Amino acid sequence: MSFEARKRSMMEKLKYYLDHDEVDEPIIDLIRDINSIPKAFTTSSCSGRVIVLIDRGRKIDSEKYLTFHRYITIEDLKDIPRSNNVWLRVEPFILHLITKDIDTADSILRAARSVGIKRGGMQRIKVGYFIELMGNVNLSVPTSKCIIDEELVGVINTLMRKNFRMLERFHLSIKELIENIQETGNH
Amino acid sequence: MSFEARKRSMMEKLKYYLDHDEVDEPIIDLIRDINSIPKAFTTSSCSGRVIVLIDRGRKIDSEKYLTFHRYITIEDLKDIPRSNNVWLRVEPFILHLITKDIDTADSILRAARSVGIKRGGMQRIKVGYFIELMGNVNLSVPTSKCIIDEELVGVINTLMRKNFRMLERFHLSIKELIENIQETGNH
Repeated sequence: MSFEARKRSMMEKLKYYLDHDEVDEPIIDLIRDINSIPKAFTTSSCSGRVIVLIDRGRKIDSEKYLTFHRYITIEDLKDIPRSNNVWLRVEPFILHLITKDIDTADSILRAARSVGIKRGGMQRIKVGYFIELMGNVNLSVPTSKCIIDEELVGVINTLMRKNFRMLERFHLSIKELIENIQETGNH
Repeated sequence: MSFEARKRSMMEKLKYYLDHDEVDEPIIDLIRDINSIPKAFTTSSCSGRVIVLIDRGRKIDSEKYLTFHRYITIEDLKDIPRSNNVWLRVEPFILHLITKDIDTADSILRAARSVGIKRGGMQRIKVGYFIELMGNVNLSVPTSKCIIDEELVGVINTLMRKNFRMLERFHLSIKELIENIQETGNH
């Protein structure tokens, strides 16, 4: 399948997910903008989340018990199971995208690094280059070993705020890249 | 500076660090093997660790209070400061390397993915390609919100074991890549 055919098919899927409210709201505008770049498209994304996960060893067997793509309150965490296999996590945003050529991949990675996104890089694939970008906030602890109180909720929300701010800075940096592409006609 | 000059200079630094026991023991053989690939060299590495970190906001101001590149006991964690700004973390192995060309970068990334290392990718730099590879175990919690007992030490050591096993599998996969390079004369 060509890059263009793959992008078309992915954009149809994305439209379906958007119509069914299955894309995290805080990341929608950013992925729309990335997808306006002719030689790039997103394949999956998460805006960052607070998650309670039942770990059954292999990732495929694990189960999301609760997921919040927003700030939380102590009420959100009441009655969660307490076990060594149930993890409370704050996960940063993650973005997967594909570019047609290495120059487009390179300019997106530069836009990311310019706002402090250090985790990420590209891999060569058949239709071009696959890019993963991730924020860097992180909390991860078994619910059995963790004191769930207002203070922890404060720590969690501080991490979420940091995460959303980095996402916003990246969005500005992508807007600049798009203006640049339109002016120079590159990519 | 050319790729070769940069590799030579980095290999001198590495020799210095090895002579002064400043490289994590569990990763030494792997980085020696990677550095035997003519078109690749490592620039930094960590075998994975248990760390107690005093978070002062910016990374540069933060302070490592304790670091263990090994399994721990409850004794190792006694008397650590309890605060929202002091984090207990299990961090997976991380490897930074540079390759001269995209084919070498691609074959190392394939070797990594073949053993389940999903986090990582390349970035284009002046002398070639910069690669970051990371394991995926993770624990991260403020010491004020965490119950430090034998059970938690068990959870931590299970994560460390997973991490070291993935590192070993990656090492085997790099050995295969090296044999392949020697046989085909590629790279």
